[in-house]
Amino acid sequence: MITVGIVGGTGYTGVELLRLLAQHPEVRLQAITSRKEAGQRVDALFTSLRGHVDLAFSTPEEAALDRCDLVFFATPNGVAMGQARALLGAGVRVVDLSADFRIRDVALWEKWYGMPHACPELVASAVYGLPETHRKAIAGARLVANPGCYPTAVQLGFLPLLEAGVIDPAVLIADAKSGVSGAGRKGEIPLLLAEASDNFKAYGVSGHRHHPEIRQELAAAAGRDVELTFVPHLVPMIRGIHATLYGQLRADTDLQALFEARYAREPFVDVLPPGSHPDTRSVRASNLCRIAVHRPPDSDMVVVLSVIDNLVKGAAGQAIHNMNLMFGLEETLGLTQVPVLP
Amino acid sequence: MITVGIVGGTGYTGVELLRLLAQHPEVRLQAITSRKEAGQRVDALFTSLRGHVDLAFSTPEEAALDRCDLVFFATPNGVAMGQARALLGAGVRVVDLSADFRIRDVALWEKWYGMPHACPELVASAVYGLPETHRKAIAGARLVANPGCYPTAVQLGFLPLLEAGVIDPAVLIADAKSGVSGAGRKGEIPLLLAEASDNFKAYGVSGHRHHPEIRQELAAAAGRDVELTFVPHLVPMIRGIHATLYGQLRADTDLQALFEARYAREPFVDVLPPGSHPDTRSVRASNLCRIAVHRPPDSDMVVVLSVIDNLVKGAAGQAIHNMNLMFGLEETLGLTQVPVLP
Amino acid sequence: MITVGIVGGTGYTGVELLRLLAQHPEVRLQAITSRKEAGQRVDALFTSLRGHVDLAFSTPEEAALDRCDLVFFATPNGVAMGQARALLGAGVRVVDLSADFRIRDVALWEKWYGMPHACPELVASAVYGLPETHRKAIAGARLVANPGCYPTAVQLGFLPLLEAGVIDPAVLIADAKSGVSGAGRKGEIPLLLAEASDNFKAYGVSGHRHHPEIRQELAAAAGRDVELTFVPHLVPMIRGIHATLYGQLRADTDLQALFEARYAREPFVDVLPPGSHPDTRSVRASNLCRIAVHRPPDSDMVVVLSVIDNLVKGAAGQAIHNMNLMFGLEETLGLTQVPVLP
Amino acid sequence: MITVGIVGGTGYTGVELLRLLAQHPEVRLQAITSRKEAGQRVDALFTSLRGHVDLAFSTPEEAALDRCDLVFFATPNGVAMGQARALLGAGVRVVDLSADFRIRDVALWEKWYGMPHACPELVASAVYGLPETHRKAIAGARLVANPGCYPTAVQLGFLPLLEAGVIDPAVLIADAKSGVSGAGRKGEIPLLLAEASDNFKAYGVSGHRHHPEIRQELAAAAGRDVELTFVPHLVPMIRGIHATLYGQLRADTDLQALFEARYAREPFVDVLPPGSHPDTRSVRASNLCRIAVHRPPDSDMVVVLSVIDNLVKGAAGQAIHNMNLMFGLEETLGLTQVPVLP
Repeated sequence: MITVGIVGGTGYTGVELLRLLAQHPEVRLQAITSRKEAGQRVDALFTSLRGHVDLAFSTPEEAALDRCDLVFFATPNGVAMGQARALLGAGVRVVDLSADFRIRDVALWEKWYGMPHACPELVASAVYGLPETHRKAIAGARLVANPGCYPTAVQLGFLPLLEAGVIDPAVLIADAKSGVSGAGRKGEIPLLLAEASDNFKAYGVSGHRHHPEIRQELAAAAGRDVELTFVPHLVPMIRGIHATLYGQLRADTDLQALFEARYAREPFVDVLPPGSHPDTRSVRASNLCRIAVHRPPDSDMVVVLSVIDNLVKGAAGQAIHNMNLMFGLEETLGLTQVPVLP
Repeated sequence: MITVGIVGGTGYTGVELLRLLAQHPEVRLQAITSRKEAGQRVDALFTSLRGHVDLAFSTPEEAALDRCDLVFFATPNGVAMGQARALLGAGVRVVDLSADFRIRDVALWEKWYGMPHACPELVASAVYGLPETHRKAIAGARLVANPGCYPTAVQLGFLPLLEAGVIDPAVLIADAKSGVSGAGRKGEIPLLLAEASDNFKAYGVSGHRHHPEIRQELAAAAGRDVELTFVPHLVPMIRGIHATLYGQLRADTDLQALFEARYAREPFVDVLPPGSHPDTRSVRASNLCRIAVHRPPDSDMVVVLSVIDNLVKGAAGQAIHNMNLMFGLEETLGLTQVPVLP
Repeated sequence: MITVGIVGGTGYTGVELLRLLAQHPEVRLQAITSRKEAGQRVDALFTSLRGHVDLAFSTPEEAALDRCDLVFFATPNGVAMGQARALLGAGVRVVDLSADFRIRDVALWEKWYGMPHACPELVASAVYGLPETHRKAIAGARLVANPGCYPTAVQLGFLPLLEAGVIDPAVLIADAKSGVSGAGRKGEIPLLLAEASDNFKAYGVSGHRHHPEIRQELAAAAGRDVELTFVPHLVPMIRGIHATLYGQLRADTDLQALFEARYAREPFVDVLPPGSHPDTRSVRASNLCRIAVHRPPDSDMVVVLSVIDNLVKGAAGQAIHNMNLMFGLEETLGLTQVPVLP
Repeated sequence: MITVGIVGGTGYTGVELLRLLAQHPEVRLQAITSRKEAGQRVDALFTSLRGHVDLAFSTPEEAALDRCDLVFFATPNGVAMGQARALLGAGVRVVDLSADFRIRDVALWEKWYGMPHACPELVASAVYGLPETHRKAIAGARLVANPGCYPTAVQLGFLPLLEAGVIDPAVLIADAKSGVSGAGRKGEIPLLLAEASDNFKAYGVSGHRHHPEIRQELAAAAGRDVELTFVPHLVPMIRGIHATLYGQLRADTDLQALFEARYAREPFVDVLPPGSHPDTRSVRASNLCRIAVHRPPDSDMVVVLSVIDNLVKGAAGQAIHNMNLMFGLEETLGLTQVPVLP
């Protein structure tokens, strides 16, 4: 059994970690911290967990996180980088679901996240936690930077094309759409049902924090720098990301075969049959990414459709996948839930 | 292992049975029938099941249902009553998720369902499949009539009060609200997103088929006939039933203690702390019923709030609970999913 | 032309007043105040108003409200009672969309609203602004207390029955459902799309501020005190209230004729044909209340279904109706929009 | 007064025409035809129209459409082309909201719409009803082909760029998103709330009927053929289209000034300030198109965001705009509704 702690358990990635870890056969939940909710039972805040999670929120001081085998950070950006060093020093492994260790260029990170990095010396040793590209490194990692939700969906869609060199890396477009839980459990007016439902809009066209993260990893896949136009949109739904990706072909190739071969041994990436249009509900509440690849008639454009559940494959599920890899467990342990449809 | 067949697997109760049975450790799915979809892979119709259900729909003739241990009917009303006799004769046990065997008074059934009953001689031996009231009989049953979704939510809310005789059985009001999946997977205009979303309405005030079913079972609990006003409403959500129940107290009693005692040993009924307001999402995709009981200030009225997922505790989950009872398995086997929130 | 000011124009009743007043042929909008947004253009906050409202928010000091003919208060409870006296003294008429002047019993108001009343001497002279019951008094009023949204829907449904004395005033039940805009434009977690959509729940069963308001007015209609059980619910939709009302008949009467006669000359109350189930979208964005009355078979219960748009007939539209009455304009002026469906 | 008939009044464009025409000061509605609903009152099918439309559906034979000044076809594709000749011969002007006369290349039309064209000789004289490009021709037209919803949003976004020659016409991408009412009022399973809500997906990547229509008109704007990748998506909302458009700049230019100049005199196109992200609700139930133009940092890509209400500017409102032009009325007559927000 792995003894696990969670820092920051009151957001959507926190409650999703709890939902999944409560069903994981090799995990013992030791503590969940929240300064604000300390003392309150977890299942009083999240009624869905009644009967499944028998813990109260604790302060970081009470939580004895240094006695855990692994600590997940489900915190706002800027928290994990302040606590990781001490935990790692105590022999605890860390999976950070926030952005603190995702970007290797510290100056770039500081520009986008608007604060000095508290722990730059750990950035180089942190492993980017996308198993489909960094599986081996994750298995040996002490500190894993769990990818963002948009970056997961976009990378999995572009990777086969860039690795094979069949599209022009200088003209990549990612038109991405996310359910509102991606914005977090925060009392902000634009996220109200009365504002966001029966509505659709883009945001962040002039710049989004996930852009440098995606670009860094796509460049690694392409073996050279890439140019990416990334436009996120807000969809009136709770969960789900749909990335519609556009690339310009520079070589004729069997796209379907390329994708199927790339992901043949990946347990959480499902390449759909030709002509498919994955919908986000087909992965709802599961750790799957489903992908379809299209080449519109009379066109040199390739269109990739990639869907994930932003809270699972885009956050908590991927974090548990990383945990399984770090502790030598079967990769899919605790992550085989059937998507909930309808 | 129990060998299981499903008749009518293309509706919402069918796909939900598949989602749950695919994760059940003691079940082997033998066949799923659908004349209309015969030959098509199940996971082509329901992409969510890719990797979990490796079957194609078959015709009833191909399905060899008489070699199953148990057959679930997830069919429109009127189908199960035509096929149950032969299956039971072949030693197969049957759980009917439709209404064919729920009402003991055959003439009353025929009035509400608008057709002659094809198998009236089996009605008396069918067991009404609400485990919280008929557990023992279900364990010995060959034919179980799985309750309707509204009846499950309404009965579980009223039962403690009627069994204890603390409310007037002559004035019961059930104001019930259901998500649209309760109406089935049918291409009908009033169920379109463009019609039913951002909207709320009552229906069937002059009479609904679940009324006689609820009344029959509440009368059994009360030990006398009851008068019930039942008003169903359509909520712009996918899953979930919320029943708001009103009764007039005729004895002073500790309502909270009454409910907690009644359901203390029920694995799927959760009585919330005093002052709670259960929301339907707190049971989403799980087999739970959560209940809160209120007595408004300066009033002799008791208000009970009862929520279920109509497709699980109101249909497929309850059917599997019944299967577990019928085959002597642990009651909760395959039914311990944590609700999906948000 | 009536010169109009709005205090508190940043909430949903505020923007709805602006939408309707911008189309009113006899209104000139002079000022909209908001301390927080002072200086910002109204159409920068509410893009929908671009081209229709050419004003910036102003501070109360700049707004010169004492030179208006009428001031609407679209403020949180507790604001209007602090400013009404001065405005009335300057000859300005006031329509308060908050609760400050709705309840005649000041001690009762203070108990429910949790603050001392700043202006108790004006309560007696304030007129409750439900035109269907107080039309004449409104026409002569200087200060109108615009009704709450739930109270409007509930009263219009119960009035014909109580005025005619055909139901027992000691056992009234109002099971009411509201879209989330009824909770206001506030950044609160339970109102997020990720929390409130695909979900349904009751709230305030142990007591809601609209209860004493409804009871006061129903008692006036009945000519005696009434007992009311009022349970509000939150519906995952933006606009709309659906009140399902239950009463016990004590006299046999033609209910349909009773309702049609009561509302025959009311321009904003529409009694539907027998057997109807009004849906909230049938009044979306309009000032209408649609009502259907049912008597379930073999029952002494009457069930009334009453729907309004909470922001129009339940707030801004009714306020403008009151303005029309106060200034001797045609009642329906500026309020004849066709409901938006789908 | 213009005497108007509507053929096919039971779909969403039909009821939207009725909503808008009922408020138009220069229109007298003579007849609405529907074979299926003949004899039924319009306001029985669409309760929202009670008090506003006092007509019953009639058969085409009873409707005496040849005595109208104008007939709107709000029919499935293939109907208008069978009836237009006779009406035009009788001196009636026609606005066809279906696709029958939109594509000038009859063979291309037949390929995409899968039927022979019944009236090819009228195609050349039909005027494409986008006032922003064909205003003068519309004013003199007898037969107007009202544009599709996607084509309206996409064209208005690309026009300034193509007319000015500042983007490469060989690489245009339109990633478009539509609410479900765009699919019509049809009882189809994928459009059910239980299927389409809390979900997002693309469709028709391999080809959509609006592609040739958009391409034809963009080519006219560019003065040469264009290459367009068009990917439509289904959004879980009722109304609204959001087109996210991508083009590659080949000249440095002040994009904001370009758009503002192009639409300076257009009453229904609103260019938002720099940095804006229009949301679909900002035009809900109105005839407006709102547009924002972006150039992401360090990029030669231009991103245009264009939103309309698919039933108004994308269908019924634009049709009435065309009517106003055809009859020499003020362009905006009957079309100045303020968008409904929230």
